[in-house]
Amino acid sequence: MPIITLTTDFGEKDHFVGAIKGAIYSELPDLRIVDISHSISPFNISEAAYIIQNAYISFPKGSIHIIGVDSELNPENKHIAVKLDDHYFICANNGIMSMLCSEIAPEKIVEINIHDRVTSSFPVLDVFVKVACHIARGGTLEVIGKAIENIKPIRNLVPYVNDDRTQIIGSVIYIDNYGNVVTNIKKPFFETIQKGREFEVSARSYKFKVIHSKYSDIVNFDIPEEKRHDEGKRLVVFNSGGFLEIAIYKSNPITVGSASTLMGLNLMDTVSVNFIATPLVPENIENISTLQDYK
Amino acid sequence: MPIITLTTDFGEKDHFVGAIKGAIYSELPDLRIVDISHSISPFNISEAAYIIQNAYISFPKGSIHIIGVDSELNPENKHIAVKLDDHYFICANNGIMSMLCSEIAPEKIVEINIHDRVTSSFPVLDVFVKVACHIARGGTLEVIGKAIENIKPIRNLVPYVNDDRTQIIGSVIYIDNYGNVVTNIKKPFFETIQKGREFEVSARSYKFKVIHSKYSDIVNFDIPEEKRHDEGKRLVVFNSGGFLEIAIYKSNPITVGSASTLMGLNLMDTVSVNFIATPLVPENIENISTLQDYK
Amino acid sequence: MPIITLTTDFGEKDHFVGAIKGAIYSELPDLRIVDISHSISPFNISEAAYIIQNAYISFPKGSIHIIGVDSELNPENKHIAVKLDDHYFICANNGIMSMLCSEIAPEKIVEINIHDRVTSSFPVLDVFVKVACHIARGGTLEVIGKAIENIKPIRNLVPYVNDDRTQIIGSVIYIDNYGNVVTNIKKPFFETIQKGREFEVSARSYKFKVIHSKYSDIVNFDIPEEKRHDEGKRLVVFNSGGFLEIAIYKSNPITVGSASTLMGLNLMDTVSVNFIATPLVPENIENISTLQDYK
Repeated sequence: MPIITLTTDFGEKDHFVGAIKGAIYSELPDLRIVDISHSISPFNISEAAYIIQNAYISFPKGSIHIIGVDSELNPENKHIAVKLDDHYFICANNGIMSMLCSEIAPEKIVEINIHDRVTSSFPVLDVFVKVACHIARGGTLEVIGKAIENIKPIRNLVPYVNDDRTQIIGSVIYIDNYGNVVTNIKKPFFETIQKGREFEVSARSYKFKVIHSKYSDIVNFDIPEEKRHDEGKRLVVFNSGGFLEIAIYKSNPITVGSASTLMGLNLMDTVSVNFIATPLVPENIENISTLQDYK
Repeated sequence: MPIITLTTDFGEKDHFVGAIKGAIYSELPDLRIVDISHSISPFNISEAAYIIQNAYISFPKGSIHIIGVDSELNPENKHIAVKLDDHYFICANNGIMSMLCSEIAPEKIVEINIHDRVTSSFPVLDVFVKVACHIARGGTLEVIGKAIENIKPIRNLVPYVNDDRTQIIGSVIYIDNYGNVVTNIKKPFFETIQKGREFEVSARSYKFKVIHSKYSDIVNFDIPEEKRHDEGKRLVVFNSGGFLEIAIYKSNPITVGSASTLMGLNLMDTVSVNFIATPLVPENIENISTLQDYK
Repeated sequence: MPIITLTTDFGEKDHFVGAIKGAIYSELPDLRIVDISHSISPFNISEAAYIIQNAYISFPKGSIHIIGVDSELNPENKHIAVKLDDHYFICANNGIMSMLCSEIAPEKIVEINIHDRVTSSFPVLDVFVKVACHIARGGTLEVIGKAIENIKPIRNLVPYVNDDRTQIIGSVIYIDNYGNVVTNIKKPFFETIQKGREFEVSARSYKFKVIHSKYSDIVNFDIPEEKRHDEGKRLVVFNSGGFLEIAIYKSNPITVGSASTLMGLNLMDTVSVNFIATPLVPENIENISTLQDYK
């Protein structure tokens, strides 16, 4: 029996998530349900797209992912089920799937048409659960919807590259639990444009010339611990999902602040990368690797 | 093996919920536990009553619902187990069950009396888990308690109706994750009093003459999307649980605000419905359906 | 198949927890995963130590506890697996285990050395999950690490006792969901020093001469409910984990305030106990038991 995952903006307090689980277990008592997140910002499509893209890949093939964000049925917000990378996704056709579909071609998309059989003011409970249980029992997408070719895109999903390929202009798509700022610039895309050139990442007035592979790369472990002052330093990493991320070492949004709050970086803000033909002189590289601003 | 659900005010951070699950799985390794909510406001009986009423109904018959809110045993706060609608509820006798019991007569209520067999400064762990596991193994309520007839009521649970039945005076019982404001006026009750008359819902200085069946009913899909300004509009719906709810279309309490914050509506505030003998003229209805205030 | 528990600072929103569960179920579909907490304050070792110590004990012997707090591998932050009290713990060697190991001698500690076999910028997913699944399948610690003797301590973990044993100086190690203030003074330790003497607990300018065994012990149930004013009273209890805790009766951090906010008590603040040779006169005891300040 496949796993059903849940990604919603229902929050941790309301009864919605419990009700959905009760409904699934009423149909399929032996199935496993896994929460991915219920704390997506209300109606935030980009956040939901980022979360599901990073989470689904760890699940077994055949898993069924319910995404309950902005899912009320109306003439401009149809319900879809998508088969992609041997996983199933059930959501509204509001752009959530466009990030994933831009990287991996979907095998099949159907517009769900079982609404005449269910009345609903709570479509995740009444429609998505029914579709998920149908798929979990081995049912095909054709039975619950009619095939469509395209899904609704999210605007500004992919970063922009200028004509002479000297600049990538990306944007902030997610702020994580540590207040770190995630952009839409992914490592393979970056490397395709970079072609080994030096570069400078710019976010507001902050500039960085190194992208680390993990956070503690900025620490010089040859210096005794009590003489170091690494906490609070700014850095850029490709995070575990491969996204370019502007971070603060050991940040805490509640107490000392975070990359988002201290650097003033919010969702949709621009982060750019400029590629430089001439290499930097060595002492500058040294400065940068200790992550001082060099403005 | 039945499902055990958990509804508490323990929050998401502390070890309490994990400890309870460990204790249940230690007794019954194959049982399934489902979280309904752990974010009930501390000691808030009304919130807990609203959450459990809306969630339990989705679970299979025979499910066992532990409610850990204000559950410390003392002379005025006994522990009870209730069988109702073929579900079991374990909680303190502090009013949590009175909302449910006012709609559906309980089949059996017992006051739990196994406390001489367990010492406890954490009654949900030490008492409720034992009772839940006893029921899950097929045990009867008589073994763990003595039958009682009545449970403690919550005051102001049901809305008030005036003598000539021209007005319902309800109150706010819950603010949901979107900041929408849920009242204690349920649809069947409303319709019994309404008898087809026109009406006006009043909350503070805001007035509404239409109750929608879903949120996007306020959108006019004949107008091009870029010319509409529906987000942030006020509306009234019967929510998925059947409760009259004052909402803001696509609200976000953190960013743009919500029905609760923007309209100044809080728990226990009054929401009234006045019934009107004479019908409205058509153009007024038109105005209202676009949800402009018409004060 | 044993249980795997998760205790992290990943928060409730990000995809990290979902990804970890997906990875575990991909390896071991029939295993059970239980969340203990994902809301540890970022990088807060003491909070994580307190949570895991209080939660693990409810789980069956053989359970495997993954602790994902400050777990990025670097020369000063190795990964360890510990067998203790017939439970397994997988975490970074950053002090998290020192609270538990100070009470119960670990049976075995290994420094994990499978990192050459896994690449990782997300060690909980890439390393801890692999180790946990190895143990869950019955594998031994020697296969995934080399034995070490000692773990990194947390400073200021245990309270200080003065030379003539008239004073315990403890500190605040946790603030719970109700805003109650938990110290590192445990009941058996307290009683060993107390030896039956009267005492006075001091926290900032607040003083207490009684430690209760449950919160509602401060209520005089002989007084009619409407004439009592117990909510908001300060008290000291040994909490369900046996830790000395300064609380406010029926507090709510969001609305009326809590012990932490109203008394200005924060993490790392000092709480002391002074032992008094001469007993108090009876009428003073009476005053104290009603929990008035007697400054």
